[in-house]
Amino acid sequence: MLQQKFTRRIGRIVLCAALGAAALSAVPAWAQFAKPENAVEYRQSALFLIGNHMGRIKAQLDQSKPALDQIKASAALIDVLKTVPFEAFTPGTADVGDSAAKPEIWKERDRFDKLAKEMQDKVGQLNAAAQSGDVAAIRTAFGETGKACKNCHEDYRRKK
Amino acid sequence: MLQQKFTRRIGRIVLCAALGAAALSAVPAWAQFAKPENAVEYRQSALFLIGNHMGRIKAQLDQSKPALDQIKASAALIDVLKTVPFEAFTPGTADVGDSAAKPEIWKERDRFDKLAKEMQDKVGQLNAAAQSGDVAAIRTAFGETGKACKNCHEDYRRKK
Repeated sequence: MLQQKFTRRIGRIVLCAALGAAALSAVPAWAQFAKPENAVEYRQSALFLIGNHMGRIKAQLDQSKPALDQIKASAALIDVLKTVPFEAFTPGTADVGDSAAKPEIWKERDRFDKLAKEMQDKVGQLNAAAQSGDVAAIRTAFGETGKACKNCHEDYRRKK
Repeated sequence: MLQQKFTRRIGRIVLCAALGAAALSAVPAWAQFAKPENAVEYRQSALFLIGNHMGRIKAQLDQSKPALDQIKASAALIDVLKTVPFEAFTPGTADVGDSAAKPEIWKERDRFDKLAKEMQDKVGQLNAAAQSGDVAAIRTAFGETGKACKNCHEDYRRKK
Protein backbone atom coordinates (compact mmCIF):
# COMPACT_ATOMS: atom_id res chain seq x y z
CA MET A 1 0.00 0.00 0.00
CA LEU A 2 2.71 2.41 1.05
CA GLN A 3 4.76 1.38 -1.95
CA GLN A 4 1.86 2.00 -4.33
CA LYS A 5 1.11 5.36 -2.73
CA PHE A 6 4.80 6.17 -2.92
CA THR A 7 4.98 5.29 -6.61
CA ARG A 8 1.79 7.21 -7.42
CA ARG A 9 3.08 10.15 -5.45
CA ILE A 10 6.35 10.24 -7.32
CA GLY A 11 4.44 10.10 -10.59
CA ARG A 12 2.38 13.11 -9.61
CA ILE A 13 5.38 15.05 -8.39
CA VAL A 14 7.20 14.43 -11.65
CA LEU A 15 4.07 15.52 -13.51
CA CYS A 16 3.77 18.67 -11.39
CA ALA A 17 7.42 19.48 -11.97
CA ALA A 18 6.89 19.05 -15.71
CA LEU A 19 4.14 21.64 -15.67
CA GLY A 20 6.84 24.18 -15.06
CA ALA A 21 7.14 27.17 -12.80
CA ALA A 22 4.75 29.28 -14.90
CA ALA A 23 1.87 26.99 -13.98
CA LEU A 24 2.64 26.91 -10.26
CA SER A 25 -0.14 29.25 -9.28
CA ALA A 26 -2.65 26.76 -10.68
CA VAL A 27 -1.37 23.91 -8.52
CA PRO A 28 -3.59 23.35 -5.46
CA ALA A 29 -2.07 23.98 -2.05
CA TRP A 30 -2.04 20.28 -1.15
CA ALA A 31 0.11 19.59 -4.21
CA GLN A 32 3.12 18.97 -2.01
CA PHE A 33 1.17 15.74 -1.44
CA ALA A 34 0.13 13.43 -4.28
CA LYS A 35 -3.54 13.97 -3.41
CA PRO A 36 -5.52 15.64 -0.61
CA GLU A 37 -6.06 12.26 1.14
CA ASN A 38 -2.29 12.07 1.61
CA ALA A 39 -2.26 15.43 3.38
CA VAL A 40 -4.94 14.12 5.74
CA GLU A 41 -3.07 10.88 6.40
CA TYR A 42 0.15 12.83 6.90
CA ARG A 43 -1.22 15.12 9.60
CA GLN A 44 -3.18 12.30 11.24
CA SER A 45 -0.02 10.17 11.33
CA ALA A 46 2.03 12.85 13.06
CA LEU A 47 -0.80 13.70 15.48
CA PHE A 48 -1.34 10.03 16.31
CA LEU A 49 2.33 9.58 17.21
CA ILE A 50 2.27 12.77 19.28
CA GLY A 51 -0.89 11.63 21.10
CA ASN A 52 0.54 8.19 21.74
CA HIS A 53 3.71 9.61 23.27
CA MET A 54 1.75 12.13 25.35
CA GLY A 55 -0.07 9.06 26.68
CA ARG A 56 3.23 7.35 27.46
CA ILE A 57 4.45 10.37 29.42
CA LYS A 58 1.13 10.53 31.30
CA ALA A 59 1.43 6.84 32.15
CA GLN A 60 4.88 7.45 33.64
CA LEU A 61 3.78 10.55 35.56
CA ASP A 62 0.95 8.49 37.08
CA GLN A 63 3.50 6.17 38.65
CA SER A 64 5.27 6.81 41.94
CA LYS A 65 8.65 6.46 40.25
CA PRO A 66 8.36 7.71 36.65
CA ALA A 67 10.89 6.15 34.25
CA LEU A 68 12.78 9.27 33.19
CA ASP A 69 14.47 7.57 30.24
CA GLN A 70 11.08 6.82 28.74
CA ILE A 71 9.80 10.33 29.38
CA LYS A 72 12.93 11.79 27.79
CA ALA A 73 12.56 9.63 24.69
CA SER A 74 8.86 10.44 24.26
CA ALA A 75 9.33 14.17 24.85
CA ALA A 76 12.21 14.29 22.36
CA LEU A 77 10.11 12.55 19.70
CA ILE A 78 7.13 14.86 20.30
CA ASP A 79 9.50 17.82 20.04
CA VAL A 80 10.70 16.64 16.62
CA LEU A 81 7.12 16.06 15.46
CA LYS A 82 5.54 19.23 16.86
CA THR A 83 5.56 21.20 13.60
CA VAL A 84 5.01 18.23 11.26
CA PRO A 85 1.17 18.03 11.27
CA PHE A 86 0.84 21.70 10.36
CA GLU A 87 2.56 21.26 6.99
CA ALA A 88 -0.54 19.37 5.96
CA PHE A 89 -3.48 21.55 7.01
CA THR A 90 -3.58 22.82 3.47
CA PRO A 91 -6.65 24.43 1.85
CA GLY A 92 -8.99 21.93 0.22
CA THR A 93 -8.39 19.21 2.79
CA ALA A 94 -11.25 19.80 5.23
CA ASP A 95 -13.84 17.28 4.11
CA VAL A 96 -11.46 14.67 2.79
CA GLY A 97 -11.51 11.01 3.79
CA ASP A 98 -11.98 10.56 7.52
CA SER A 99 -10.50 13.95 8.38
CA ALA A 100 -11.79 15.41 11.64
CA ALA A 101 -10.51 18.87 10.74
CA LYS A 102 -13.31 21.48 10.86
CA PRO A 103 -13.61 23.98 7.97
CA GLU A 104 -13.24 26.72 10.63
CA ILE A 105 -9.47 26.05 10.53
CA TRP A 106 -9.28 27.74 7.14
CA LYS A 107 -11.78 30.47 8.06
CA GLU A 108 -9.88 31.38 11.23
CA ARG A 109 -6.43 30.54 10.02
CA ASP A 110 -4.59 33.15 12.13
CA ARG A 111 -6.16 31.85 15.34
CA PHE A 112 -5.47 28.22 14.37
CA ASP A 113 -1.84 29.06 13.61
CA LYS A 114 -1.58 30.92 16.93
CA LEU A 115 -2.87 27.88 18.84
CA ALA A 116 -0.49 25.63 16.92
CA LYS A 117 2.40 27.92 17.84
CA GLU A 118 1.36 27.88 21.50
CA MET A 119 1.31 24.08 21.45
CA GLN A 120 4.76 23.99 19.86
CA ASP A 121 6.13 26.37 22.50
CA LYS A 122 4.68 24.22 25.29
CA VAL A 123 6.13 21.07 23.73
CA GLY A 124 9.53 22.77 23.64
CA GLN A 125 9.19 23.51 27.36
CA LEU A 126 8.05 19.94 28.03
CA ASN A 127 11.09 18.55 26.25
CA ALA A 128 13.44 20.91 28.09
CA ALA A 129 11.90 19.85 31.41
CA ALA A 130 12.09 16.17 30.43
CA GLN A 131 15.76 16.38 29.49
CA SER A 132 16.49 18.19 32.80
CA GLY A 133 14.96 15.25 34.68
CA ASP A 134 13.01 17.50 37.07
CA VAL A 135 9.76 15.58 37.60
CA ALA A 136 7.87 18.53 39.09
CA ALA A 137 8.82 20.68 36.09
CA ILE A 138 7.86 17.85 33.71
CA ARG A 139 4.47 17.56 35.42
CA THR A 140 3.77 21.29 35.02
CA ALA A 141 4.94 21.41 31.41
CA PHE A 142 2.99 18.25 30.58
CA GLY A 143 -0.23 19.77 31.99
CA GLU A 144 0.28 22.94 29.96
CA THR A 145 1.05 20.97 26.80
CA GLY A 146 -2.09 18.86 27.23
CA LYS A 147 -4.11 22.04 27.67
CA ALA A 148 -2.58 23.51 24.50
CA CYS A 149 -3.54 20.36 22.56
CA LYS A 150 -7.07 20.54 23.94
CA ASN A 151 -7.50 24.24 23.08
CA CYS A 152 -7.13 23.41 19.41
CA HIS A 153 -9.08 20.16 19.49
CA GLU A 154 -12.09 21.79 21.12
CA ASP A 155 -12.59 24.38 18.41
CA TYR A 156 -11.11 22.78 15.33
CA ARG A 157 -11.61 19.02 15.58
CA ARG A 158 -14.88 17.37 14.72
CA LYS A 159 -16.27 14.97 17.32
CA LYS A 160 -16.18 11.41 16.01
CA MET B 1 -11.08 10.88 18.04
CA LEU B 2 -7.49 11.23 19.14
CA GLN B 3 -8.69 12.60 22.45
CA GLN B 4 -11.07 9.66 22.96
CA LYS B 5 -8.37 7.18 22.02
CA PHE B 6 -6.01 9.00 24.33
CA THR B 7 -8.48 8.85 27.23
CA ARG B 8 -9.29 5.18 26.62
CA ARG B 9 -5.61 4.44 26.37
CA ILE B 10 -4.81 6.10 29.68
CA GLY B 11 -7.67 4.15 31.27
CA ARG B 12 -6.22 0.87 30.03
CA ILE B 13 -2.70 1.76 31.08
CA VAL B 14 -3.87 2.63 34.58
CA LEU B 15 -5.81 -0.64 34.65
CA CYS B 16 -2.77 -2.61 33.47
CA ALA B 17 -0.59 -0.92 36.07
CA ALA B 18 -3.14 -1.82 38.72
CA LEU B 19 -2.89 -5.48 37.77
CA GLY B 20 0.54 -5.39 39.31
CA ALA B 21 3.87 -6.79 38.30
CA ALA B 22 2.87 -10.34 39.20
CA ALA B 23 0.31 -10.38 36.39
CA LEU B 24 2.65 -8.94 33.74
CA SER B 25 3.21 -12.24 31.99
CA ALA B 26 -0.53 -12.41 31.31
CA VAL B 27 -0.57 -9.02 29.59
CA PRO B 28 -0.49 -9.37 25.79
CA ALA B 29 2.53 -8.01 23.96
CA TRP B 30 0.59 -5.12 22.40
CA ALA B 31 -0.38 -3.93 25.90
CA GLN B 32 2.00 -0.99 25.58
CA PHE B 33 -0.86 0.16 23.33
CA ALA B 34 -4.47 0.47 24.57
CA LYS B 35 -5.56 -2.11 22.00
CA PRO B 36 -4.03 -3.94 19.05
CA GLU B 37 -5.59 -1.49 16.57
CA ASN B 38 -3.47 1.24 18.14
CA ALA B 39 -0.29 -0.74 17.51
CA VAL B 40 -1.30 -1.02 13.85
CA GLU B 41 -2.09 2.70 13.58
CA TYR B 42 1.17 3.52 15.35
CA ARG B 43 3.40 1.60 12.95
CA GLN B 44 1.39 2.72 9.92
CA SER B 45 1.72 6.35 11.04
CA ALA B 46 5.48 6.16 11.37
CA LEU B 47 5.85 4.25 8.08
CA PHE B 48 3.60 6.72 6.27
CA LEU B 49 5.74 9.66 7.40
CA ILE B 50 8.91 7.81 6.42
CA GLY B 51 7.45 6.97 2.99
CA ASN B 52 6.31 10.53 2.45
CA HIS B 53 9.74 11.95 3.23
CA MET B 54 11.46 9.33 1.07
CA GLY B 55 9.19 10.65 -1.68
CA ARG B 56 10.24 14.22 -0.96
CA ILE B 57 13.93 13.31 -1.20
CA LYS B 58 13.27 11.46 -4.47
CA ALA B 59 11.47 14.51 -5.84
CA GLN B 60 14.50 16.66 -5.06
CA LEU B 61 16.96 14.15 -6.50
CA ASP B 62 14.92 14.12 -9.72
CA GLN B 63 15.61 17.83 -10.16
CA SER B 64 18.73 19.27 -11.75
CA LYS B 65 19.41 21.36 -8.62
CA PRO B 66 18.12 19.44 -5.58
CA ALA B 67 17.16 21.66 -2.62
CA LEU B 68 19.64 20.44 -0.03
CA ASP B 69 17.85 22.09 2.90
CA GLN B 70 14.74 20.05 2.11
CA ILE B 71 16.71 16.83 1.70
CA LYS B 72 18.48 17.47 5.02
CA ALA B 73 15.21 18.06 6.85
CA SER B 74 13.54 14.96 5.39
CA ALA B 75 16.56 12.72 6.02
CA ALA B 76 16.83 13.95 9.62
CA LEU B 77 13.15 13.20 10.25
CA ILE B 78 13.41 9.74 8.70
CA ASP B 79 16.47 9.09 10.85
CA VAL B 80 14.49 9.93 14.01
CA LEU B 81 11.58 7.74 12.89
CA LYS B 82 13.59 4.77 11.63
CA THR B 83 13.12 2.60 14.73
CA VAL B 84 9.64 3.83 15.66
CA PRO B 85 7.47 1.46 13.55
CA PHE B 86 9.21 -1.59 14.96
CA GLU B 87 8.02 -0.94 18.51
CA ALA B 88 4.59 -1.85 17.25
CA PHE B 89 5.03 -5.10 15.32
CA THR B 90 3.91 -6.90 18.44
CA PRO B 91 2.46 -10.44 18.46
CA GLY B 92 -1.29 -10.57 17.95
CA THR B 93 -1.37 -7.62 15.58
CA ALA B 94 -1.18 -9.36 12.18
CA ASP B 95 -4.84 -9.51 11.14
CA VAL B 96 -6.00 -6.39 12.89
CA GLY B 97 -7.88 -3.54 11.21
CA ASP B 98 -6.41 -2.66 7.82
CA SER B 99 -2.96 -3.94 8.69
CA ALA B 100 -0.93 -5.07 5.70
CA ALA B 101 1.54 -6.95 7.89
CA LYS B 102 1.85 -10.61 6.89
CA PRO B 103 1.77 -13.26 9.64
CA GLU B 104 5.18 -14.37 8.32
CA ILE B 105 6.70 -11.47 10.28
CA TRP B 106 6.09 -13.33 13.51
CA LYS B 107 7.04 -16.73 12.05
CA GLU B 108 10.36 -15.39 10.70
CA ARG B 109 10.99 -12.79 13.34
CA ASP B 110 14.78 -12.98 13.22
CA ARG B 111 14.83 -12.35 9.48
CA PHE B 112 12.30 -9.52 9.81
CA ASP B 113 14.38 -7.91 12.55
CA LYS B 114 17.51 -8.29 10.43
CA LEU B 115 15.86 -6.52 7.49
CA ALA B 116 14.62 -3.79 9.82
CA LYS B 117 18.14 -3.32 11.15
CA GLU B 118 19.53 -3.13 7.60
CA MET B 119 16.97 -0.44 6.74
CA GLN B 120 17.90 1.52 9.86
CA ASP B 121 21.60 1.32 9.00
CA LYS B 122 20.92 2.56 5.47
CA VAL B 123 18.79 5.42 6.80
CA GLY B 124 21.65 6.40 9.07
CA GLN B 125 23.95 6.50 6.05
CA LEU B 126 21.37 8.47 4.07
CA ASN B 127 21.10 11.06 6.83
CA ALA B 128 24.89 11.31 7.15
CA ALA B 129 25.16 11.82 3.38
CA ALA B 130 22.33 14.37 3.44
CA GLN B 131 23.90 16.43 6.20
CA SER B 132 27.25 16.35 4.33
CA GLY B 133 25.52 17.90 1.32
CA ASP B 134 27.24 15.57 -1.15
CA VAL B 135 24.55 14.95 -3.78
CA ALA B 136 26.28 11.91 -5.32
CA ALA B 137 26.58 10.31 -1.88
CA ILE B 138 22.94 11.16 -1.13
CA ARG B 139 21.88 9.54 -4.40
CA THR B 140 23.75 6.32 -3.59
CA ALA B 141 22.50 6.16 -0.01
CA PHE B 142 18.94 6.95 -1.12
CA GLY B 143 18.99 4.09 -3.61
CA GLU B 144 20.24 1.66 -0.97
CA THR B 145 17.68 2.86 1.55
CA GLY B 146 14.86 2.41 -0.96
CA LYS B 147 16.10 -1.10 -1.67
CA ALA B 148 16.18 -1.88 2.05
CA CYS B 149 12.56 -0.70 2.38
CA LYS B 150 11.56 -2.83 -0.59
CA ASN B 151 13.29 -5.96 0.74
CA CYS B 152 10.98 -5.97 3.71
CA HIS B 153 7.84 -4.88 1.85
CA GLU B 154 8.21 -7.64 -0.73
CA ASP B 155 8.17 -10.46 1.80
CA TYR B 156 6.24 -9.06 4.72
CA ARG B 157 3.66 -6.63 3.41
CA ARG B 158 0.36 -7.79 1.96
CA LYS B 159 -0.54 -6.38 -1.44
CA LYS B 160 -3.54 -4.06 -1.17
